[in-house]
Amino acid sequence: MTVDLGGAAAFLAAHDNFTILCHERPDGDTLGSGYGLCRILRAMGKKANVRCRNEIPKKFSSLMLADQAFEEQTVVAVDIADPFLMGAGVREQYEGRVDLCIDHHASNKCFSRLSCIDASAAAAAELIIALAHELNVPITKEIADCLFTGLTTDTGCFRYANVTARTHRLAAEMIECGADAENINLQQFETKTKTYAALERLALDSMEYYLDDRCAMITVTQEMFEKSGSNESECDAIAALPRQVEGVMVGVTIRQRTDGSFKASVRSRNPVDASLICSRFGGGGHKNAAGCQLGSNLAETKAKLLAVIEENL
Amino acid sequence: MTVDLGGAAAFLAAHDNFTILCHERPDGDTLGSGYGLCRILRAMGKKANVRCRNEIPKKFSSLMLADQAFEEQTVVAVDIADPFLMGAGVREQYEGRVDLCIDHHASNKCFSRLSCIDASAAAAAELIIALAHELNVPITKEIADCLFTGLTTDTGCFRYANVTARTHRLAAEMIECGADAENINLQQFETKTKTYAALERLALDSMEYYLDDRCAMITVTQEMFEKSGSNESECDAIAALPRQVEGVMVGVTIRQRTDGSFKASVRSRNPVDASLICSRFGGGGHKNAAGCQLGSNLAETKAKLLAVIEENL
Repeated sequence: MTVDLGGAAAFLAAHDNFTILCHERPDGDTLGSGYGLCRILRAMGKKANVRCRNEIPKKFSSLMLADQAFEEQTVVAVDIADPFLMGAGVREQYEGRVDLCIDHHASNKCFSRLSCIDASAAAAAELIIALAHELNVPITKEIADCLFTGLTTDTGCFRYANVTARTHRLAAEMIECGADAENINLQQFETKTKTYAALERLALDSMEYYLDDRCAMITVTQEMFEKSGSNESECDAIAALPRQVEGVMVGVTIRQRTDGSFKASVRSRNPVDASLICSRFGGGGHKNAAGCQLGSNLAETKAKLLAVIEENL
Repeated sequence: MTVDLGGAAAFLAAHDNFTILCHERPDGDTLGSGYGLCRILRAMGKKANVRCRNEIPKKFSSLMLADQAFEEQTVVAVDIADPFLMGAGVREQYEGRVDLCIDHHASNKCFSRLSCIDASAAAAAELIIALAHELNVPITKEIADCLFTGLTTDTGCFRYANVTARTHRLAAEMIECGADAENINLQQFETKTKTYAALERLALDSMEYYLDDRCAMITVTQEMFEKSGSNESECDAIAALPRQVEGVMVGVTIRQRTDGSFKASVRSRNPVDASLICSRFGGGGHKNAAGCQLGSNLAETKAKLLAVIEENL
C-alpha cells in the first residue's frame, strides 16, 4: 500500500525498535537518509539501528552511529527501489519483512507493506527532511550533516537534472541547521583516493577520439587496475570524463571485468540518446547515461559500438 | 559613499542610458550580473549596454545582448573590486567616472561615487537579484539564466565556502523563474575544451608526491602548452587537481610563463595555511588557496617551496 508523508510519519510515530536498511554498495543518499532517519527516531526516544550489506566507505564514516541493543520489531528500507538492492545476505533475511519503504525512485517495486515514494525528489533525503517536519523533530547539526550529504551526493553537488527549487531550499535549511556544507562537499567531490587518481591518469591517457571528435572513448583494462592499485568499486567517476570534452556528443568508457569481458558506460549530450545506443547491445539506462555488456574481443566490440553510435549522431 | 540596496535601486530608477562595466578576463558572475542587470534596466524601459575589455568567452555567449544605440549618461560597475580590473583601455576611459559599483568583494576599493557592497554575498548576482526585487522587475527566464550563471560559477556549483543558505534560496528562485540550471551547469562544469583536456592529461602525468604523500605537485611547462595547444587563459582549473588526492594537505601547481619564470598556485586543506606558505615568496591569497611568483630555475624553486611547505605541515 502506498502512503503519503503524513501516513509514513504516523507509522514511524506508532512503532519502535527499528532496523533501517540501506542499499548495497551504499552511496551518500542511502547512508545519509538512513543515519539521518536513525537519529530522528532516537531523538523521539525510540531505538533504531542502520543495516547495510557492505562496510561503510571511509568517506561516510562521520555519519555513522554505534548500534543499540534491542529486539527488532520494525523494518524500514531507505532509498531501496528493489529487494535485490539489499544485497546478498540482507535480502534473504529481510525480503517480505519490510514494513515501510521511503524512496525517490520512480522504478520502486513497492515490495514493502507500506511504500512512501516521491519520484520528484532528487534524493531520498528530501523525504526524510519532510518526515522530520511531519514528526516535529528539530533537525540537529548531526541530522543536518546526514541529510545534506544525501542531497549533495545524489545531485552531483546540485548539478544534475534531478535538482529542483525544493532541493536548493532544503539545502538552505540544512545549512541553517548547522550542516558543514563546505567540508561535506570537499570530502565528497574534491577528494580522490591515490589509487583512483592513478587510474584516472591511465584512463585519460587511453582516451581516443572518433567520428570527427564527436565521440571520445576511454578504455580501462584489468592491467590498469593492477598498475594503479584501484578496483571496480571506486572507478564509477571515470564514466563522466570522455563526454566532458567540448564537441563530444557521446562519451564512452569501456571497462574490462575480471572475467575478461567488457562493459560500456555511455554518456551523451542532447539530442543523442545513450539508452537507445545501449539498448542495441541489450543494455539500457537514462537518456544521457546508459550502459551495456560487451563481449571479450575489444577491437570487435569497439567497432560495433562505434557503428551504432555513428547511426545515432 | 556607500549605499544599501534601496539606495542603489533608487539610483538606477532615477537614471538612464547605462553602460555596465564587467571586469577583464570575465567570469560567469561579472557577465551574468552585468547582462542580468542590463536586461532588468531594459525591462524598465531604460537603455543599457554591457562593456567588457575582452571578448566574451564562447561558453557565456548565450547571456549576451546586442548593443543599443544611445548617448551614455550613467556608468555602473558590476563585480569590480578595483579599477585596474576594468583592464587596459576600459580603465583609462572610465576610472573616476563610475557612478555606482555593485560588488561582493570585501576588498572593494570604493572607487565609485556610490558603492553598494555586500561581502556576505557569494556572488554579485545575489545583489542583482535583490535589486530586481527592490525595483519590482519580474525576473524573466532570460534574466534568471544570467543570474543563475553568476550564482553557480562563483560558487563552483554551490561547492565553495562562500555558499550560504541565501545562495541556495536564490538558486531555487532562479529555477522557478525558468533558469535552465541543468544545461548551465553542464556547460560551465562538465565541458572542457579539447586543448584543455589535452593539457590536463599532460599535467596529471607530471604529478609527483612529496613529504610522505602529504604534498602533490603538478608542473605545467611552456612545452606542455605547445604540445596541447592550450594556453594560460584556460588552465586555471588545473590548480585544483593535486589537492584532490586523499591525504594531500598541500597541492601545488607550478606553471611556466612565456618569459621562462614560474608561478605557483597552492591549495591546502585545513589546518594548513596556503597564504602563509605563499607569503614567504612574496605572494598571498586566502587560507586554502594562494599563489606566488618563483624564479626561473625549476629544481631550485621546487626545493625551496618544499622546504617551506614542510615547515607548515
